[in-house]
Amino acid sequence: MVKIIKIAVDLQGADRAPTELADGAFAALRDNKDLFLYLCGDRALLEEYMKNKGYSSERAEFVDAPETITNNEDPAEAFRIKKNSSLVKGMELCKSDPEIEGFVSCGPTGAIFVSAMMQLGRMANVSPMLLVELKKTDGSPICIVDCGANVDCRAEKLVDFARMGIAYMKAVGISDPSVGLLSNGAEDRKGSAVVKKANELLRESGLRFLGNVEGNGILSGNADVIVCDGFSGNILLKTIEGSAKAVIAELREMSAASNTDNDEIIRKLYSKYDHNTQGGAVLLGTKLPIIKGHGAATAETVYNIIKAAYRLAENDLADKIKNEFAPRTAALV
Amino acid sequence: MVKIIKIAVDLQGADRAPTELADGAFAALRDNKDLFLYLCGDRALLEEYMKNKGYSSERAEFVDAPETITNNEDPAEAFRIKKNSSLVKGMELCKSDPEIEGFVSCGPTGAIFVSAMMQLGRMANVSPMLLVELKKTDGSPICIVDCGANVDCRAEKLVDFARMGIAYMKAVGISDPSVGLLSNGAEDRKGSAVVKKANELLRESGLRFLGNVEGNGILSGNADVIVCDGFSGNILLKTIEGSAKAVIAELREMSAASNTDNDEIIRKLYSKYDHNTQGGAVLLGTKLPIIKGHGAATAETVYNIIKAAYRLAENDLADKIKNEFAPRTAALV
Repeated sequence: MVKIIKIAVDLQGADRAPTELADGAFAALRDNKDLFLYLCGDRALLEEYMKNKGYSSERAEFVDAPETITNNEDPAEAFRIKKNSSLVKGMELCKSDPEIEGFVSCGPTGAIFVSAMMQLGRMANVSPMLLVELKKTDGSPICIVDCGANVDCRAEKLVDFARMGIAYMKAVGISDPSVGLLSNGAEDRKGSAVVKKANELLRESGLRFLGNVEGNGILSGNADVIVCDGFSGNILLKTIEGSAKAVIAELREMSAASNTDNDEIIRKLYSKYDHNTQGGAVLLGTKLPIIKGHGAATAETVYNIIKAAYRLAENDLADKIKNEFAPRTAALV
Repeated sequence: MVKIIKIAVDLQGADRAPTELADGAFAALRDNKDLFLYLCGDRALLEEYMKNKGYSSERAEFVDAPETITNNEDPAEAFRIKKNSSLVKGMELCKSDPEIEGFVSCGPTGAIFVSAMMQLGRMANVSPMLLVELKKTDGSPICIVDCGANVDCRAEKLVDFARMGIAYMKAVGISDPSVGLLSNGAEDRKGSAVVKKANELLRESGLRFLGNVEGNGILSGNADVIVCDGFSGNILLKTIEGSAKAVIAELREMSAASNTDNDEIIRKLYSKYDHNTQGGAVLLGTKLPIIKGHGAATAETVYNIIKAAYRLAENDLADKIKNEFAPRTAALV
């Protein structure tokens, strides 16, 4: 008997229409025969769209939630008021059904965060944070933790982020992930007060800590997990994307000026550094992994982030996180 | 009568030999007939090299300073002990000769910083900081302030950085420079506690403040001056360079794989994003602008940073900074 992987999908709160995003969900269902999706949104609208498109799946169920939480609302306020939103109803379902192994949304990060904290609750004593996976120059994966959830934070939290990052990298197939601490210099004595303290704590942690890493040592460096607070991580992530796109724009211009056909190269580079074609950010630290797609998500994004959630469920990410935080006393005796 | 621009050059403390770096200084002298250089280093060595190379200039004077401060020393300790270093003797000369309008070095940033603070002293009440000028996608200049000098700092300092950045941009020809505050979101409410406070202060400052800018809005955005603390600024700067080089490396590989001749395009892109061919970092806030080249500097770097110091002196950067900090009461009456 094949195990079925159940994932809940919030189709609202992004820039594009829920029906457009639904295309990505149905594509994921077609490609993965052991996938079951709960699709949260305006049921009447979605059912009609599904009928018109000729989609059918025994492995999809609609969760009727006509309200939408947008990026223009105060997250806590929206959470309090909009109990019929796709986000809140989706999370409610996740809370009540322990078989659901992931939640996927392209809605506003703040509201997802509030909803996950309030409805699912945090795992152990960690502070939930956002992880983003990127590809290095050589094609191997790295992750950045935290990418924006914890803007001001204590050094101790950075060690928790490292542990969650390690669990994630194990779930994507890296056997003994190494950790680098984002700083303004490679030497241990470099960094803000918080970073210097985090360096000490990571040195004592027993984790495979390689030391500080700088902004120019991420995409071509050795660390699998890049640890930072949410402020620096957000700047790091957006700067990588922005700089790559700047170079690609210049390449496009120079190619046109010199009549060189670089269309295929440009397409490949762009897709590598474009948010929409990547796997999205992963909110870790609440009781369920949550995959957050970009607000400008397309059907392709939704397809990709459902696949990402599926892969993480398949590799028992939640268990791997628990293991990283399990007391190590037995091993020390 | 042509005004002579006098600049002091520290030839030691970088990775390469002082004689190699001296090539850049003599090239700058050849190209600028109103430039006078004080060359600080081992006089006997430099004079012999100059003789062997057939260099001659009435507009160069050697400052004998056989000692070198390296990146492996504690900056404050090195400053205290090595009074015969090219750095300390060069700064001493700058302090004693008010005609010198700039100091140039590729030595260790920390030691330059200590030496400038102790010997030249700070201008007004500002905290000295590092400015780096970059080119946007459209070729226009922007600057990042601070790029690494003030790792933990109060919001008030960020406003000072903005003023110094504005003075610098005026000196390089931007008439009414605008300011952006680096943050993890465009909205005023986004940011660390310090950044949120700095946003408020900048809104009240009377400067042309455009609001928060994100990491993906630097090279293609509207702000001329990007304000941040030295920790974030250092990460921003190095991430721009590292990401650009990652994309260029991928471009090189894809070009080889598809037999596309992109050599000229790659050379141009690389030189744009390479530290060595850029103008260096500018230490502002002490009584003299100091241009700091990368430790891996070549003769070309030295040529470029002397030219940068020359240009800033020509455009009265020091006066422009004083003006930005001058009390504005008269205008308010």
